[in-house]
Order: sequence, then structure tokens, then C-alpha cells
Amino acid sequence: MLNFEFKNPTKIIFGKGEIAKISKEIPENSKILMLYGGGSIKSNGVYDQVMKALEDFEVTEFGGIPANPEYEVLMDALQVIKEKNIDYLLAVGGGSVIDGTKFLSAAAKYDGEPWGILKKPVRTFEGEGLPFATVLTLPATGSEMNSGYVISRRGTQEKLASGGPGLFPQFSVLDPEVIRSIPKKQVANGIVDAYSHVLEQYMTFPSSATLQERIMESIMITLQEVAPKVMAEDFDYDAAGNFMWCCTMALNGLIQKGVVTDWAVHSMGHELTAYFGIDHARTLAIIAPSHYRYNFETKKGKLAQYAERVWNISEGTLEEKAEKGIEKMEEFFQSLGIKTKLSEYTENYEGTAEKVEKTFTDRKWLGLGEHKKLSPKDAYKIVEMSY
Amino acid sequence: MLNFEFKNPTKIIFGKGEIAKISKEIPENSKILMLYGGGSIKSNGVYDQVMKALEDFEVTEFGGIPANPEYEVLMDALQVIKEKNIDYLLAVGGGSVIDGTKFLSAAAKYDGEPWGILKKPVRTFEGEGLPFATVLTLPATGSEMNSGYVISRRGTQEKLASGGPGLFPQFSVLDPEVIRSIPKKQVANGIVDAYSHVLEQYMTFPSSATLQERIMESIMITLQEVAPKVMAEDFDYDAAGNFMWCCTMALNGLIQKGVVTDWAVHSMGHELTAYFGIDHARTLAIIAPSHYRYNFETKKGKLAQYAERVWNISEGTLEEKAEKGIEKMEEFFQSLGIKTKLSEYTENYEGTAEKVEKTFTDRKWLGLGEHKKLSPKDAYKIVEMSY
Repeated sequence: MLNFEFKNPTKIIFGKGEIAKISKEIPENSKILMLYGGGSIKSNGVYDQVMKALEDFEVTEFGGIPANPEYEVLMDALQVIKEKNIDYLLAVGGGSVIDGTKFLSAAAKYDGEPWGILKKPVRTFEGEGLPFATVLTLPATGSEMNSGYVISRRGTQEKLASGGPGLFPQFSVLDPEVIRSIPKKQVANGIVDAYSHVLEQYMTFPSSATLQERIMESIMITLQEVAPKVMAEDFDYDAAGNFMWCCTMALNGLIQKGVVTDWAVHSMGHELTAYFGIDHARTLAIIAPSHYRYNFETKKGKLAQYAERVWNISEGTLEEKAEKGIEKMEEFFQSLGIKTKLSEYTENYEGTAEKVEKTFTDRKWLGLGEHKKLSPKDAYKIVEMSY
Repeated sequence: MLNFEFKNPTKIIFGKGEIAKISKEIPENSKILMLYGGGSIKSNGVYDQVMKALEDFEVTEFGGIPANPEYEVLMDALQVIKEKNIDYLLAVGGGSVIDGTKFLSAAAKYDGEPWGILKKPVRTFEGEGLPFATVLTLPATGSEMNSGYVISRRGTQEKLASGGPGLFPQFSVLDPEVIRSIPKKQVANGIVDAYSHVLEQYMTFPSSATLQERIMESIMITLQEVAPKVMAEDFDYDAAGNFMWCCTMALNGLIQKGVVTDWAVHSMGHELTAYFGIDHARTLAIIAPSHYRYNFETKKGKLAQYAERVWNISEGTLEEKAEKGIEKMEEFFQSLGIKTKLSEYTENYEGTAEKVEKTFTDRKWLGLGEHKKLSPKDAYKIVEMSY
């Protein structure tokens, strides 16, 4: 069990009707910038609930934050923050809006060109950001209860991650009712995204952090249990609530404590989004099976544990259980309508492995995976297996 | 799944050798009052590690906080805080020292007779207490990562609980190495205490808070797995680490969110400690089996789930599984050398049920248990079954 530090000060306000509480959480007389995305909050009732709760505040709106939050758009929001002396940010949206808001929280307190926050060697923001909070409308990324974010810059084709201990939301409202109006395709993406977050922290080797491993297994089992219910036409509040809470718990820092993590699937998946515009979660479903098969020897112990505990596979050798675990995972993704091969998304997949290898070589990766030993050539082979 | 709020700002610093880090966590120039208990920290090396870490601070010591922290002793400590203008409290100990320190944190900022904090109708402290932190030396109560505490007053024979959102430790150091020197009897108590904390939040009825239930089951399974290793003569660092983290996770607020809780076992157990001086954890092991058998009809669904998921009982009817679950729990306590009948602790057990009934009647309980329906007469019967 590795040494660790854990601190997560975000207040979670969970449940039906709780959006009304935000007025009590934001300091009186705050000048609020409310940030949102494409405007779905205007048709699903969330916008009205937020505006009603904030009727005694001075609120400026900034909509239109795109799916991969773009630096250029966020610079416009930063301008508004400065011009209007905004002192509180409220993100109303999913991971992209929340990530963008985190960046703005940091940028508002940063001297100099804000891109510099992301380009520093360690890529973390050490200061305390402008206070901000979130109303989550799309469960998936866990951004509502962590201090990390990813920002894209169209001009330079860069996509960089950052974060820091001063960038936790002060509070986040999680009302499972928002899931009623989310298109099923996005619900499926959310399930796979959260599930993959757990896998990246889990699928390494059996460790001595017994409790953390069991909590990770609990999240995966729960996601599997509720998935058919949240994908069904009829709305199931409890299933929605468990789905939402699983997404948060998958990436609020708790489960990664005391263990080593992988995250190579995300690294390779990001490239598929960059080249083909494939939804983030779907790229993870494409890469993960190949990643686990390619690294079978180092991961088979944990794969077998996963098969046994998460899928109740009791028959067979360790290797057979491990392979069965990968198959079960693929079937789970497919049961959500998520295809697990690159060729099912694009006809132009040839050459992708070469591009990933070159990109990773150019970026001078120090080594991917939990052992930091995977080279760009290994990434080539994994991506090729994913065709 | 019930609506809930969750916020826990305590920073956990976990692992071997981490006590040295406290100097970086406490603000420079703080005037520290270091509180501890009977002095075991002087023989196990913790005292030396703490004092070395604090060599650049002005530190006043206050030792001798007893096992059930007493108001009278704590009033002496409050005097020191005021005389020396102490602005930071450091609890170095187990639940009693930490609970006492929490009370002092509140009392130092409270106008008037400090007992008033505990006697207010809601019995919570609304303000922000004097900053404090902990170095945990005895895993059991979870006090190192929550904001509640229990204080006893010798003069009036009262034992009252309180707490509040301003009373979380700023940080807590959890170094599993401290478990090396803990007497096995206290280790056994710690295991049963943490396990019982989970049971009080779990053993109600099957709920829709699927993830929370699975996390609770994870903590219980982990405690069962590591128990023989932490009870063995040879020190097992990883087992100790999992034990320590289970104790914290059992009562840091997370698992109770979205579910109803019971806590009747603690209410009855406290009386056995008051009458006979039986260790707190042991009173829980005495009461729990009878409580679950007495309330079998309302609890059998969850008891069966417990038997299935925590003990892998797959045979039998729901009732048979439920009863088997209770038996497994009793066997687990007994495997730690903890007896589960009152008559095994005292010959003078006759009349205890009557005393508990009278005490609960005098206190005008509104009803015990997750349904708040158990009367003092029910408590009589449960205690009588525990003889």
C-alpha cells in the first residue's frame, strides 16, 4: 500500500430538487458568471431552476462552451470576468463546461498569458483560483468533484491537462433528474467514461490496497447493474442516482490512493478523438481491449481478479479467467451500443498506428502504463490491434 | 436513494514516516497545544517523531486525557489554551484524545459555559472551531476524519455527543507503523468498533443506494480479510494499512449518504459501558446479535444480503441466510477473542435490561433504530437476549 495524501473539500449536494439550494451556498452580493454549453439547459428546465435560485444575485451569462473546451472561447469569457469584475463562477453543464470553468478560475488569478498555466513543466496551478461551483447536467467525467481539467487550443492543435489543489469546486449540485433528458448516446458515453476511469486506476496488477480495489470493483459492478435501467426508455430515478454518484466517485481521487495507475488507454484514445472526432468514451472502448490483450502478461493477475469479482467467473485457469474478463468488458460496452473496433467508426483507419507512434515519439513520452515502460512502438501495436 | 449533502475537507496524510510532514501543514509561528493520553506515545516513538517535526514551533504539552474524555480534564486544557494564547491544537492519540481536542476546538471559540455546546437542543456547534489536526495512534473510531465527538462528565454521569461542520481536523496523519505497538486487545476492539460502525449504517433494509451498500460491504470484507493478519504476532504493514484506512472510511460520512441508519446498538452498548466499564467495542459485539435477531422481520432482507455478499452464503431460504449472517458475524467477533454475551463479562448481569429500559424512558427517546419505532421495552428485550 503506497503512501498517499487525500483531500477533497468539494461539497456535494445530491438529489431531486436540490438546485434551489445554490442561492444559500454562494456568498451574498457575489457577481456571478454563469457558464454553459450548447443550450440544452434551456430546454430541460435546468436553466430556469438556476436562474430562479439566483434571482437575488447579479448574474452574467456566458453560453456556447464547446464539447472540448477551447482556449479561444474561454479567452472571451476571461474578458467578461475582467470587465464585469466577476467574483464567482457557476458552471452549469457537463465535464467540458466544468473543465473550462476551472481553467478560468485559475486564469483569473494568473499574471501573464493564461496558456502559460498549462505549459509549465509540471502543468499544475499552485494558487487558489477564483471561487466556483457547478450544477452537473451530464454525469461522466467526475470533474464536478476534482481539481483537474483538460483544455484544447484550436490554433496550435494542442490539448493539455492541468489542475491543482486550489481548483476544486466549492460545491456541486448533482440532481439525477437531469438524466431524464440526456440523449441515450450520451448516457452510454457517460457510463463507459466512468467505467474506464475506474479501469485506468484498477487494471494494473493485484495490489495490497485491498479496500481501494474493492471500492473500484463496487463502482464497476454498480455501473453494470444500473446501465440497462438508465439506458431504458422509462426514467428510473434510483438507477440515475447511482449512475451519477458512480461517475463522481470514479474520479474524485479516492480510489487512486495507495495504488499505481495506468491511464495509457486515455493517452491513446485522445489521439483517436483528435484524428477522427470519435467521442472520447468510445475511443476508450476501442483501445482498452487491445491494451489489456497486448499487456496480458503483466495484467493477467488483475484481469483474473476482475473476472472473478466483477463478473463472477469462477471456472478456468488464471489466463482463461483473464481473457474472459476482457470479453465480458467488451460485451458490456457493446450492450450499450458502443462499438469496440476502430474500423466500425471509420474506413480510414489505416495508418493510425503510425500516426500515434510518431505523435508519442515527438512528445518524448517517458513511458506509458503503470510500469512506465510502454514505448511509442508498443502504442503502435496496441492501436493496430484495435483496428 | 435519499437526498444528501457531503463535505469532508480533512486532508489525510497516509503512510510510513509521514509524521515528519506535520511541520509543513501547520501555519508558521503557530502556538501549538499538543494533546495526548496516557503516555504510550512516549514508549512507541510517536512522541519523539512529533516533537522532532515541531522543533521550530512553540509547543505546550497536555497529556493525561482519559479513555472516555472527561469534561473536567478538558477544562484544565481549556485554561492552558487561554493562558498561553494557543492558536493550534494537535491531538496525538486515538478517538478519545481526538474527541477531546474537537471539543476544545469548539469550546475555545464559544462564549459562556462550554458544557452549553453539548446541552443545546440540536447539540451541534455551528461556528468554526480553533484549528486542529491529529496524529492517529489507535485506529478505531474514525474521529480523525469526521466532525463529531463524545464527551463524558464525571460530576453529572452524563455522556453527550456533539459536532458540527466547523470541527473537521485540518489534517490527520495515518501511519500504519503505529499499530506495531498496540496491544492485541485494543487492535481487536478497533476492528470490532469499525466493523460495527459499518453495521449501524448498513443493517437496516435493502436500499436503492447500491454503490453505498457495496462500499460498506467492501469495508466489512476487507476488515475480515486483514483481521487475522493484524492480530498475528508478526507485524504486517499492508494489513495494518488496510485496517487503518477501513476504520477511517467506516465513519467519515461517505457511506451513510443516501441511506437510513440505525445506531441502536451503540445506544444500548453505551449503557453497558456505563454500568460495567466494558470496552465500547465489546458492548457492540454483545448487543448486535440480539438486536438483529429481535428485529429479524424488518432486517432479514439486509441480513440475507450481508450473508450472500460478505460471507458468500448461497444456500438456503432468505431467512436461513439471514440467520447464517448473524452467526457469521458472531463467529467473526469471537475469532478476535471478543465474547458476545454479557454474562461472559460480568456475573452481575441480572437487572441490566430493567436499568436500560428505565434510562431510555427517563431520557424520553423518540424511538430507536432505522424506523425510530423501538421503545424502551424493546430495548429491555434486546438487552435481556444479550445475557
